[in-house]
Amino acid sequence: MLSTMQDGQLSLANLLKHGTSVHSASEVITWTGSEARRESYGDLGRNAARLANALRSLGVTGDQRVGTFMWNNAEHLAAYLAVPAMGAVLHTLNIRLFPEQLVFVANHAEDQVVIVDGTLVPLLAAQLPHFKTVRHVIVANGDAAALQAPDGVEVHSYAELLAAQPDTFDWPVVDERSAAAMCYTSGTTGDPKGVAYSHRSIWLHSMQVCMSDSMNLAQSDKALAIVPQFHAMAWGLPYAALMVGASLLMPDRFLQPAPLAAMLAAEKPTFAGAVPTVWQGLLAHLEANPQDISHLREVVVGGSAVPPSLMHAFEERHKVSILHAWGMTETSPLGSVARPPASATGEEAWQYRYTQGRFPASVRARLIGDSGEPLPWDNEAVGELEVQGPWIAGSYYGGSDVDPDKFHDGWLRTGDVGKISPDGYLTLTDRAKDVIKSGGEWISSVDLENQVMGHPAVAEAAVVGIPDEKWDERPLVAVVLKEGQTATPEELRDFLADKVAKWQLPENWTFVDEVPKTSVGKFDKKRIRASYSEGKLDIAQL
Amino acid sequence: MLSTMQDGQLSLANLLKHGTSVHSASEVITWTGSEARRESYGDLGRNAARLANALRSLGVTGDQRVGTFMWNNAEHLAAYLAVPAMGAVLHTLNIRLFPEQLVFVANHAEDQVVIVDGTLVPLLAAQLPHFKTVRHVIVANGDAAALQAPDGVEVHSYAELLAAQPDTFDWPVVDERSAAAMCYTSGTTGDPKGVAYSHRSIWLHSMQVCMSDSMNLAQSDKALAIVPQFHAMAWGLPYAALMVGASLLMPDRFLQPAPLAAMLAAEKPTFAGAVPTVWQGLLAHLEANPQDISHLREVVVGGSAVPPSLMHAFEERHKVSILHAWGMTETSPLGSVARPPASATGEEAWQYRYTQGRFPASVRARLIGDSGEPLPWDNEAVGELEVQGPWIAGSYYGGSDVDPDKFHDGWLRTGDVGKISPDGYLTLTDRAKDVIKSGGEWISSVDLENQVMGHPAVAEAAVVGIPDEKWDERPLVAVVLKEGQTATPEELRDFLADKVAKWQLPENWTFVDEVPKTSVGKFDKKRIRASYSEGKLDIAQL
Repeated sequence: MLSTMQDGQLSLANLLKHGTSVHSASEVITWTGSEARRESYGDLGRNAARLANALRSLGVTGDQRVGTFMWNNAEHLAAYLAVPAMGAVLHTLNIRLFPEQLVFVANHAEDQVVIVDGTLVPLLAAQLPHFKTVRHVIVANGDAAALQAPDGVEVHSYAELLAAQPDTFDWPVVDERSAAAMCYTSGTTGDPKGVAYSHRSIWLHSMQVCMSDSMNLAQSDKALAIVPQFHAMAWGLPYAALMVGASLLMPDRFLQPAPLAAMLAAEKPTFAGAVPTVWQGLLAHLEANPQDISHLREVVVGGSAVPPSLMHAFEERHKVSILHAWGMTETSPLGSVARPPASATGEEAWQYRYTQGRFPASVRARLIGDSGEPLPWDNEAVGELEVQGPWIAGSYYGGSDVDPDKFHDGWLRTGDVGKISPDGYLTLTDRAKDVIKSGGEWISSVDLENQVMGHPAVAEAAVVGIPDEKWDERPLVAVVLKEGQTATPEELRDFLADKVAKWQLPENWTFVDEVPKTSVGKFDKKRIRASYSEGKLDIAQL
Repeated sequence: MLSTMQDGQLSLANLLKHGTSVHSASEVITWTGSEARRESYGDLGRNAARLANALRSLGVTGDQRVGTFMWNNAEHLAAYLAVPAMGAVLHTLNIRLFPEQLVFVANHAEDQVVIVDGTLVPLLAAQLPHFKTVRHVIVANGDAAALQAPDGVEVHSYAELLAAQPDTFDWPVVDERSAAAMCYTSGTTGDPKGVAYSHRSIWLHSMQVCMSDSMNLAQSDKALAIVPQFHAMAWGLPYAALMVGASLLMPDRFLQPAPLAAMLAAEKPTFAGAVPTVWQGLLAHLEANPQDISHLREVVVGGSAVPPSLMHAFEERHKVSILHAWGMTETSPLGSVARPPASATGEEAWQYRYTQGRFPASVRARLIGDSGEPLPWDNEAVGELEVQGPWIAGSYYGGSDVDPDKFHDGWLRTGDVGKISPDGYLTLTDRAKDVIKSGGEWISSVDLENQVMGHPAVAEAAVVGIPDEKWDERPLVAVVLKEGQTATPEELRDFLADKVAKWQLPENWTFVDEVPKTSVGKFDKKRIRASYSEGKLDIAQL
């Protein structure tokens, strides 16, 4: 029996119309280095319409892709709204990709137009000759004349282009399952993979962001989106802000601790989102330059695990609550949020807050063991996390033959390994490809790394599994010593002796000058394993 | 271009599984007169599975309808979950319908089974012989043997039936646009009309209820659902509570001020929802029997306009904030919520709070004038409110020929008349069918009624439009005087003189013993107009 309810298409054109009309007094505030430029959501709506008209005039039709190569700012926000609302697909290009990855993703998505921030023109220009489908580049916040474009590519000034356009647009009706925006994941294996979010998935995700038990975003908020707009849609903050009329504070390219502290002081946002390293940097800055930041009712931190010490430092020294969250590009990204149950107080509440959090009703999760069997949620069994839901990717762009191992039976294999409590809180212990399978037991590479990095002489340590005849795999520790410090493998192993189980103690140690990193700054363990296989590492075996 | 996101069906089976597993420690608490009986959501999930097995064993298949004739309690909540999650359709029968309406809706929906509370058996039994499709009646919370069923109807004890069933059920996958639950509106014209909510509409509506700027429902809440489960799905509180793990406090049949005060004292809920008359009654009770109710962080009030005096009394005397909301059966019901913008404080904030509220992004609204033209949102132009969205009805059950005037161009005509501010706040002034169109201007019958009821001698007053040769329509006031009080039409008209515009002052007055009411207690103006046309009223014309 069909219901009698309206179809009620969930479309970003409706989000744009709602956010820029009834919330026309809310603002997007872009930091310019020492002060802010402000744009009301009413003006944002008119600029989005101008941008849509401009893109149409450049020939953008149907579901063609429009790339952005931009910082977080008002112009990037206008593109977030205009491109999907006109029926086209926004492709946020990650400015930190390696050059060959950048070329790959622009060609793979077949971007027709790229909007670029003036300060990023040099970075883009170097690769532009390799972009096969791009016909127009629009330079925002900078000098279009500075860009020497290859033949067949026209360069436009964002300001001039928009000035000539009407400030209304007849936004089309699109099916809610159409693609609205794309983001490529910068995996450590193979080419980047594209995730194409739908109007529906973005709408539902935005509602979730504004639910009290999630990020709790409301009209009364001014949200500082430090997490880049080219990284998992800035965790959905821009769309959620438009949905409820929260103002947005955009840092543009000023992402270092000092300017972040300055924008906090000037604009007093109530909410912020960024990865742990940003907060580590800000914490250190605030130690040296004290400043009241208690206007932040909450900050959401994800992207990698948040050290408990960081949460305590913000809570106790700055009266700012850190909300730990887990997600990935493939999950839009909101997967879980570590808000403790109301019954937990004191130390028990902290234990909940350290976890990666609880899944909301829209995200279904399961843990899968070594032989494919589902594991119990007993906070002990450790397996690979798989998730399902209306804002979870079901494939990668390009069809089901792109990395098919990532998806099975309607589930996304997250590649994260951990355990889940009976009340649904996730604790991650490792990445699936990094976990060390030793004698039928799993050793968390992350746990070992954290323990080794606790040694005063160690700057960085990466742990990978290497083949072992008896145990299948055993851990190899690659250590970067602090400048001027020394330590022997024996000393480091002794240091671990009372910190990890005896059978986990590593026999294999190597000293390196630096740990290789991916384009997003994570340990590139694939390269460590390759160096090992190629015999390039000098191994001490205890 | 299709997105790469999962289909992610929004289904109540998933809601049931989520709410009763990760939130298994949350509770549904049912008041029993002097104390409460408690059921964890874990047990609720097992009982829902038993109920689904029981219904299957009675032959309920596919999308057959299962009626409930019940108070708000744990058993009714189990039916809310089990019936839609098994793929059948829940039909909440309004126990306050007139007998012939009750018979109509049970037959129109073709209910196969009815679950009835023991105390409501006599009310149901009287009409049961006229129910054409019901084959089974399940008596909860009472004595099944007390029901003498007509031939062909089997009577079961809820407790005995469930005790024999397994506590797990293989919940099927249903399309999210399938009907999940039905509710009939008790209109004042014609037969009741059925609204069939979908799994999708209920899911989206539940998310909205939990958004910070809506009802803000969270895991930390204990929500007292006074609004009946047979009335617009108890405003969505049951499903929203399961979505986030809020506990539910259910008043069963104890809806008078004294027991409500007792359950507030015993259970200290943080949130509650009920129509204005309930809060009026509670306010009077608390005057005579003081009690701290500041554990209520907020109460949502809708169903009819909330008098500002009521909001101030709760805020100032009891430190409880009343949140004014608007909706109707056809809108699931959450249409708008009067949470002021963050920039408004003091008296300005109060002016926002008096309105019917702001529409969320998922609900689109427009005002339509006399000749079908859209009106501006300038807080002045008055027209009929039309709404659109994923939890708004697009037709009534039975097809597009059931009351087709209610729907056009994809919009629901609400029958409510009012104005909307530029920032999207709705102020209702009347019902479309009650507004008096006099000389090209509209007179609000509700405004006039409120003014007349301000006279000390007046107990009730209803205003209807009657035909007028010169002005098209003019107001007729039907007055019920307080016992022992007197007032002449001239005195009442003089009383209004400085309160309403001169051209609105009514010429036509009549005194009646009582104002006729609909089954839900609203003024039945259709009957007043009929009495007038039939010459049954004694009219004084000034």
